[in-house]
Amino acid sequence: MVNQDPISRFYSIIPAGGIGSRLWPLSRADAPKFLHDLTGSGSTLLRSTWDRLAPISGEQRIMVVTGRSHRAAVEKQLPELEDRNIVLEVEPKDSTAAIGLAAAILVRRQPDVIIGSFAADHVINDGRGFRRTVAEAVAAADAGYIATIGITPTEPAIGFGYIHTGDALTVDGAAHARAVRSFVEKPDYDTAVGYLETGDYVWNAGMFISRADVLLEEIGRNRPALLAGLQELADAWDDPVLRGPAVDRIWPGLEKIAIDYTVAEPAAAAGRLAVIPGDFDWDDVGDFAAIAKLHNGGRAGGLAVLGEHARVLADASSGVVVSGSDRVISLIGVQDIIVVDTPDALLVTTSQNAQRVKGVVDALKLSGRNDVL
Amino acid sequence: MVNQDPISRFYSIIPAGGIGSRLWPLSRADAPKFLHDLTGSGSTLLRSTWDRLAPISGEQRIMVVTGRSHRAAVEKQLPELEDRNIVLEVEPKDSTAAIGLAAAILVRRQPDVIIGSFAADHVINDGRGFRRTVAEAVAAADAGYIATIGITPTEPAIGFGYIHTGDALTVDGAAHARAVRSFVEKPDYDTAVGYLETGDYVWNAGMFISRADVLLEEIGRNRPALLAGLQELADAWDDPVLRGPAVDRIWPGLEKIAIDYTVAEPAAAAGRLAVIPGDFDWDDVGDFAAIAKLHNGGRAGGLAVLGEHARVLADASSGVVVSGSDRVISLIGVQDIIVVDTPDALLVTTSQNAQRVKGVVDALKLSGRNDVL
Repeated sequence: MVNQDPISRFYSIIPAGGIGSRLWPLSRADAPKFLHDLTGSGSTLLRSTWDRLAPISGEQRIMVVTGRSHRAAVEKQLPELEDRNIVLEVEPKDSTAAIGLAAAILVRRQPDVIIGSFAADHVINDGRGFRRTVAEAVAAADAGYIATIGITPTEPAIGFGYIHTGDALTVDGAAHARAVRSFVEKPDYDTAVGYLETGDYVWNAGMFISRADVLLEEIGRNRPALLAGLQELADAWDDPVLRGPAVDRIWPGLEKIAIDYTVAEPAAAAGRLAVIPGDFDWDDVGDFAAIAKLHNGGRAGGLAVLGEHARVLADASSGVVVSGSDRVISLIGVQDIIVVDTPDALLVTTSQNAQRVKGVVDALKLSGRNDVL
Repeated sequence: MVNQDPISRFYSIIPAGGIGSRLWPLSRADAPKFLHDLTGSGSTLLRSTWDRLAPISGEQRIMVVTGRSHRAAVEKQLPELEDRNIVLEVEPKDSTAAIGLAAAILVRRQPDVIIGSFAADHVINDGRGFRRTVAEAVAAADAGYIATIGITPTEPAIGFGYIHTGDALTVDGAAHARAVRSFVEKPDYDTAVGYLETGDYVWNAGMFISRADVLLEEIGRNRPALLAGLQELADAWDDPVLRGPAVDRIWPGLEKIAIDYTVAEPAAAAGRLAVIPGDFDWDDVGDFAAIAKLHNGGRAGGLAVLGEHARVLADASSGVVVSGSDRVISLIGVQDIIVVDTPDALLVTTSQNAQRVKGVVDALKLSGRNDVL
């Protein structure tokens, strides 16, 4: 029987940031990826993330870190979210600041808290498998490790980073825990095929589970000034009088750096990182090709249609249509096509070119057309 | 030196009808093909047709036959058009009625008038070559022939009908006139290649030049009831009191039939048709592939952009974009693509599928989505 009670001492953190440039023009500065339903489930990615975490940590124990401009949208998606559990960033400072501040706030509320950080915009359908893996990660965290979850690859994906796993670790309650040899960037196809053949590589899902104090210690080891700023902020955070001035004073000077560089890689190098391979389904929905795959169940030749008011007329066509209006969209004889139709911008590309969408966003930025970003 | 005076006794007729279904969603019931600038010249096809004909027949001698609903748009395009030279159809009755009525009206004004009928939505850039050919056709008409202009093919096009030419005719002032063996439908590619090899085939440009009385006689030979209706209408036409009741009484019962069947084919079979091969450029802009070709000068790999307010960002893409809004349109890695972006309908297809666009229009009709037709 599956345990449905929240995991003791566990607190979830959802960093809800990042626009998702590869999903332009659907994802925008004012409507980032996590606020969209990319799976056709009827839920936004943020809401699905919440629903997955609520039974694991309890809904009073989920903290969301997001931008000020997204507050209203986040609160609308998550009416259960408690005021004290929403951390608003005045400007984005990347994942070390987001997760580190949450950890620093939470460790003050509960010194032995174990935190888990889970992106707001990933897709996981197998909630049970996810919970089993998180439970092992929490056990590894309790034993002093910073734990990450690696996804057992089902194909030689080139859109994900990989974790090269090392020896098995002996940790009570974490039967699958392994050491981490290294993190590797998105590989080319042949390299990815090689990774899968060894059986020693898992996809880097960017999830970190750790005692809050251990995580902060790791940040401090590598970025002492950043840690000092986060601690000072956290000291003031739960005081309504002190918080504002502290944010104004400290936030702008925080170093903007991903947690990969301040925690994951140095901890791996020092043998303080454990990876728990997860056998559940997972996707970071990084581009429109991923959406096509999610909708068509991996099969070629299907046509995925997203959009509440979509009116699509397709003949001998496959790929993805994202409709952001009630316009009639007609496709004739286009294969693996990606059509994203929004009121002020239209994208037409193919699955093979899905990763290049970010380049358009960069070009629009350069040419000053911020109205459509 | 080129003669710039109008050709004696000559009157031009421009039937401005037909939606151009293969150009949906650009061409619509309320914005048919002839009201669009498809060449990027800054002129609509109708206006360009007028400008081509005005020096040949004189601008007081051009009659436009169009639908009632297009009156305002036509008059805006052609401020020089005289009231007595616009014939408004209460409902479309195809080309025999349109051209036949114009001929019947004009023959009453001038019994020996020679008329030439030229579609409102074709593209010809070589005005001099066109005039030379029309002049020969008028000479053939004066000699009693119904003359048509056939375009010397520059490639084995499969989007046009062909005319199989016969023996040379001896006609004063029409050195290139030939008899017509037959009209043939749009061929497949191999057949078209065979046509070009013989040198005996020209493209059917659907232009007819004839004495008005000769044309009416031919209609009467094949469709006496239709001719009777047209004559009765024409008798009343130039009388403001009689015209309305005559239209109400006669128009609904007119047979709806193309002039190909009432004039061209029977006249050809009887040896009364002459064809003048024309060496000027010509295109009927039948589909979006034709637009791509016109804009890219026949070269592959280009991207044609139509639309006054087009904002297109293209990377490694070719084909045609028609922008009917100021939305940003981004193309990435799509070849020979056709994107037609209008406020209420979007089309994405490829040049290879351009002829299939009509099928979408048919499907929309069948499904009752007339709002976008």
